[in-house]
Amino acid sequence: MTRAPDGSTGERADAARNRARLLEVAARLVAERGAEHVTMHEVAEAAGVGKGTLFRRFGDRDGLLLALLAEAEAEFQEAYTSGPPPLGPGAPARDRLEAFGRALIERNTADADPGAALGRRLPHARRHTSDTARALHRHVSTLLRETGVDGDHDMLAHALLAFVNFETADHLRNEHQVPAARLQSTWVDLVRRVSRAGEAHGISEES
Amino acid sequence: MTRAPDGSTGERADAARNRARLLEVAARLVAERGAEHVTMHEVAEAAGVGKGTLFRRFGDRDGLLLALLAEAEAEFQEAYTSGPPPLGPGAPARDRLEAFGRALIERNTADADPGAALGRRLPHARRHTSDTARALHRHVSTLLRETGVDGDHDMLAHALLAFVNFETADHLRNEHQVPAARLQSTWVDLVRRVSRAGEAHGISEES
Repeated sequence: MTRAPDGSTGERADAARNRARLLEVAARLVAERGAEHVTMHEVAEAAGVGKGTLFRRFGDRDGLLLALLAEAEAEFQEAYTSGPPPLGPGAPARDRLEAFGRALIERNTADADPGAALGRRLPHARRHTSDTARALHRHVSTLLRETGVDGDHDMLAHALLAFVNFETADHLRNEHQVPAARLQSTWVDLVRRVSRAGEAHGISEES
Repeated sequence: MTRAPDGSTGERADAARNRARLLEVAARLVAERGAEHVTMHEVAEAAGVGKGTLFRRFGDRDGLLLALLAEAEAEFQEAYTSGPPPLGPGAPARDRLEAFGRALIERNTADADPGAALGRRLPHARRHTSDTARALHRHVSTLLRETGVDGDHDMLAHALLAFVNFETADHLRNEHQVPAARLQSTWVDLVRRVSRAGEAHGISEES
């Protein structure tokens, strides 16, 4: 029996193959025309399936784009979860955190990056509740904890990520002509400030 | 001769009065029906002017909402620029910064606040290039400098504000059930971490 590409046993292999093929067709159309010009109808037609199949599988158009985004993000996720250090395991947590932000900013500011291009097309609320967003947040939150930061890791991770999301980063690049390198050094600065205070003495209550 | 309400001498008094009246009419309609249900046509009709006048004055519908937002924000701006400490002048810069974030979060998470309601209706890019957004950023950046933070005040201010903008704060409240009080204590924590590291020894280059 063929195994599903993601190694899951819950999803039957042929269903997984069909899903992969639909995503492949959708990715090709998106690459050719841009995400904003691709309809569910066109994807269904190009894949030779009914539109109903596509909707059952992905819920709606944003659901399909989210699934494409997850595919495009898989490589980046692989790099930060199991690639070489300092992005992957093996380096000190703070180095990994710095490398993570640098890499994320590089990816999000590379206009040709398929993950970035897709991410921008999705409504903020939809994108930020995706598995991809949750994985990014969990990674930053875990590294903050491993760095020894004494504080609300969950919220601090949200705060750091708010600085590098598309809304903030695109705004700073487009309206304030901030180059990616300056975003990256601010990320590194923030990480050091956040983790240094925690390392030294936590947050004291003196004003 | 009557003085324009904002004290400017460049804008003729009657033009300023007309503008104020248009905003008053628009604010009333927005309060009655919600910003999303008010058209330029209705505002013009209720004010007894041509639609052309409205467009000449405010550019477009978002321009009108931005002008309303500026009015709604004037009170908050007054409080942080010249109200009593610690929000206004007279307290140490770091206390003012902490008070500012607490007040901004309180305002932005109060669902009935007219400024917050209007702000949410405006597209991110439009809102963030407004005079209101610029004033908030300038205030945070200036206080960081006064606190003695050694770093890129401009970018650090953007980073702090990214955590409390509507996208981030609404997402955390709606999707993660984070209460306003936790956003506020994270703000205070961030301000202390950012300013403490700067106070102590700047950012060293050790990894």
